Amino acid sequence: MTEHTVTAFDAELKDLQSTIAEMGGLAEKMQADAIDALSRQDIKLAQQIIAVDARLDHLQREIEEKAILTIARRQPMAIDLRDVIATIRIANDLERVGDLVKNMAKRILAMEGHFPPQKLLAGINNMSLMALAQFKAVLDAYTQRDAQAALAVWQRDGEIDNLYNSLFRELLTYMMEDPRNIGFCTHLLFGAKNVERIGDHATNIAETVYFLVTGQNLGVDRPKGEGIEPTA
Amino acid sequence: MTEHTVTAFDAELKDLQSTIAEMGGLAEKMQADAIDALSRQDIKLAQQIIAVDARLDHLQREIEEKAILTIARRQPMAIDLRDVIATIRIANDLERVGDLVKNMAKRILAMEGHFPPQKLLAGINNMSLMALAQFKAVLDAYTQRDAQAALAVWQRDGEIDNLYNSLFRELLTYMMEDPRNIGFCTHLLFGAKNVERIGDHATNIAETVYFLVTGQNLGVDRPKGEGIEPTA
Repeated sequence: MTEHTVTAFDAELKDLQSTIAEMGGLAEKMQADAIDALSRQDIKLAQQIIAVDARLDHLQREIEEKAILTIARRQPMAIDLRDVIATIRIANDLERVGDLVKNMAKRILAMEGHFPPQKLLAGINNMSLMALAQFKAVLDAYTQRDAQAALAVWQRDGEIDNLYNSLFRELLTYMMEDPRNIGFCTHLLFGAKNVERIGDHATNIAETVYFLVTGQNLGVDRPKGEGIEPTA
Repeated sequence: MTEHTVTAFDAELKDLQSTIAEMGGLAEKMQADAIDALSRQDIKLAQQIIAVDARLDHLQREIEEKAILTIARRQPMAIDLRDVIATIRIANDLERVGDLVKNMAKRILAMEGHFPPQKLLAGINNMSLMALAQFKAVLDAYTQRDAQAALAVWQRDGEIDNLYNSLFRELLTYMMEDPRNIGFCTHLLFGAKNVERIGDHATNIAETVYFLVTGQNLGVDRPKGEGIEPTA
């Protein structure tokens, strides 16, 4: 690349990265708000979460378009190319996290009037907090270009899966105890599945960060939300 | 582009498109096999489905890498650029369809010994057949570059959502009737959700084909698997 091209490339990359930072901030806030809205049955907050999601969708499209133009115009190589590809991949994961949180917010609205007892919310709350912690940690790893921190996030995904499996069992028991619990327990089952999938997206981002920094792929033997719950 | 570049670009695009065709064929076969495996409780077939998924994952990575190299090396513009981007997007959707079918195959294994009555399978079977028909139609629309056919797939997505909602209600009723049904009904609930999401991926591909052919985006007001089931 000529010097002119380098400067133009750097400016474009910086712009992409600051859009990722904006998306990350929004997705993080949506998750924290969803935890609040669920534990306080806050319908208004749930509606706000739903409204924010459109912004994430918009930013994801913007990143994809700009990144592809940058690849075509600047023809970056090696680490520079990985940097641009990383923004496309991470934006994709952040957009999907937004969809999953929005889905949980819609479930909060749907449960109005048939809200589960607080006791039952503890499990999904814990799981959501752990997914949020993973999510924050991986965005930090991206900002810091920290492959080891990304690897740590990747290795911790199993903990969310374990919480999910025990929550799943608890919800099934509750459904079996009283058929009137089946409605909201089903919302919580799908909600817990959503949180598990948020954890998977944090793991995806960890893989992207690791690849970005080291040029190596992490193993492919990770369970990607394909686990089956123990129902028997 | 010079004539040499055009020829090189055409060859690379053709290669990408034939890999998409291979992925489409595999994903279609996985879906058809999953319908068979569920209705015949065929454990062996379910295991084969699970094994095939790795090939889809591999091909998706291959397409992404090759497509990005093509963009960097050939700097395609307008329709040519859209063509390459389309292969990245469609490969992404096909890979996820593979994950969803694999998840259903794992549920078939998990239900061994506690299999639902045939009567209950009719609903999910119908839904799966409709999703498969949508999936075939949209892959044809891609091969034919047929924007109208893509639009028709896009408009039909609501029918799968309607089937999903009525199946959902049926499964809830069954769970309430007898707690011993809750285990396999939960697998079928998640399985039905997977089929609904396969329908969403067909709709995503329809949007990609429409954009590829016309350069225009279809509306963004489509429900993307974010619908909430009626539990009350």
